[in-house]
Amino acid sequence: MFDKIRVVLVNTSHPGNIGGAARAMKNMGLSQLVLVDPERFPDPEAVSRASGADDILANARVVATLEEALADCVLVLGTSARDRRIPWPVVDPREAADKLLDQLEGPAAGPVALVFGREHSGLTSEELQRCRYHVHIPSDPEFSSLNLATAVQVLSYEVRMQSLKRQGLSTSFQKPEAVAEDEPPVTAEQMELFYQHLQQVMVEIGFLDPQQPKKLMSRLRRLYERGQPNQVEMNILRGILTETQKAIGVQAAGARRS
Amino acid sequence: MFDKIRVVLVNTSHPGNIGGAARAMKNMGLSQLVLVDPERFPDPEAVSRASGADDILANARVVATLEEALADCVLVLGTSARDRRIPWPVVDPREAADKLLDQLEGPAAGPVALVFGREHSGLTSEELQRCRYHVHIPSDPEFSSLNLATAVQVLSYEVRMQSLKRQGLSTSFQKPEAVAEDEPPVTAEQMELFYQHLQQVMVEIGFLDPQQPKKLMSRLRRLYERGQPNQVEMNILRGILTETQKAIGVQAAGARRS
Repeated sequence: MFDKIRVVLVNTSHPGNIGGAARAMKNMGLSQLVLVDPERFPDPEAVSRASGADDILANARVVATLEEALADCVLVLGTSARDRRIPWPVVDPREAADKLLDQLEGPAAGPVALVFGREHSGLTSEELQRCRYHVHIPSDPEFSSLNLATAVQVLSYEVRMQSLKRQGLSTSFQKPEAVAEDEPPVTAEQMELFYQHLQQVMVEIGFLDPQQPKKLMSRLRRLYERGQPNQVEMNILRGILTETQKAIGVQAAGARRS
Repeated sequence: MFDKIRVVLVNTSHPGNIGGAARAMKNMGLSQLVLVDPERFPDPEAVSRASGADDILANARVVATLEEALADCVLVLGTSARDRRIPWPVVDPREAADKLLDQLEGPAAGPVALVFGREHSGLTSEELQRCRYHVHIPSDPEFSSLNLATAVQVLSYEVRMQSLKRQGLSTSFQKPEAVAEDEPPVTAEQMELFYQHLQQVMVEIGFLDPQQPKKLMSRLRRLYERGQPNQVEMNILRGILTETQKAIGVQAAGARRS
């Protein structure tokens, strides 16, 4: 299905951005790249930034006009900054991905296109009027111009995320948690001090052989990170360790002193 | 609130990626960058790729160890490839953003951190064990290594998206639609042919002055793009235009022939 999604880059100045876009696409399983009148292509800088997505570059179609790139598409979305003189339906990247997938899952699964404009000036008003929706990445209005390759990454990521979710495929491996949130959380430093303390005690009680630690600490870390102890619980854990040390302390302290 | 979100880059090799990460952060309203033992920093390449996010670079904190970077954090998430020998709770970028925001909206809004590893080898197992959750960007397993700056872009984007949604702020300007989906959709080429036909007829009927077109075509394009005509509706529209031309045709054709 992803082979019907076309990424169209219009008048790209820097071949490095074409390579970065190819890499971002391949990361997310997209493959169809169309370049409208690029300034420099092919170019070694594109290959370098593609970091292995050479097949996307090799198969990229270079055309003279946007019209040519879009001729057979049944749905076209164009990335855009927000304020245009003529308002237009604007979607965010997640909604854009859903529009594309809706179309591809429908009865007429024609090719669909995501169009990205020039590095400095984006798409022209005329180009944007060829798009059914404008896609706006909700950036900070005070610093809103994204790098072209990272914009391609965000859109490609949303296409993949939404597609995985529709297929019921997991995008994570989250375990159910039992978080005790009524008390203040502990800091990473407190967790590290606890792990040091725990390890020390395990050595002292002869449970952990420092010469053969195996994966013991890893497994304990995973357990406690998942449990997310709060301050009160941490005090309890540390108290247990301290009391354990006291209980075996006479020998241990004595052994060290001798 | 975003000033309590720390982006931590560990042992970054290429200063260009530090600059790209800074730009990506600033695009999404994040500002706190911590660099753990970077190979080259400060560096003109970082400034160049930051494209104006100089303040993020200037305020970046450089530390010697990950421990130092995380000491006061109450929640740490680390980006990771999927298959690790010891399974760990893994979240996708959207869930990661929610974890961070949950923490920051809670009673103890301590600093939180998103940790990114080396360009080629990511985070070590030891480093990952300092993280409560691992974040996996659901990339194609066959080509899974994202560029560092684009990974920072995806996570920063999700933080901003989820935050805007929580605040009830719109991330889009979508209009309600009345889409007729029971018929095949039309292609972009068919739409263009229709616009050309429409424009031609408007000129022929004297409604559009080619010397002073104003925004007439723009407004009509917006209307029809929003309406998303299907094949049957397109046939009707084209039929109306053709019939209009026929109705005025004798004069026009006669005028042209004379």
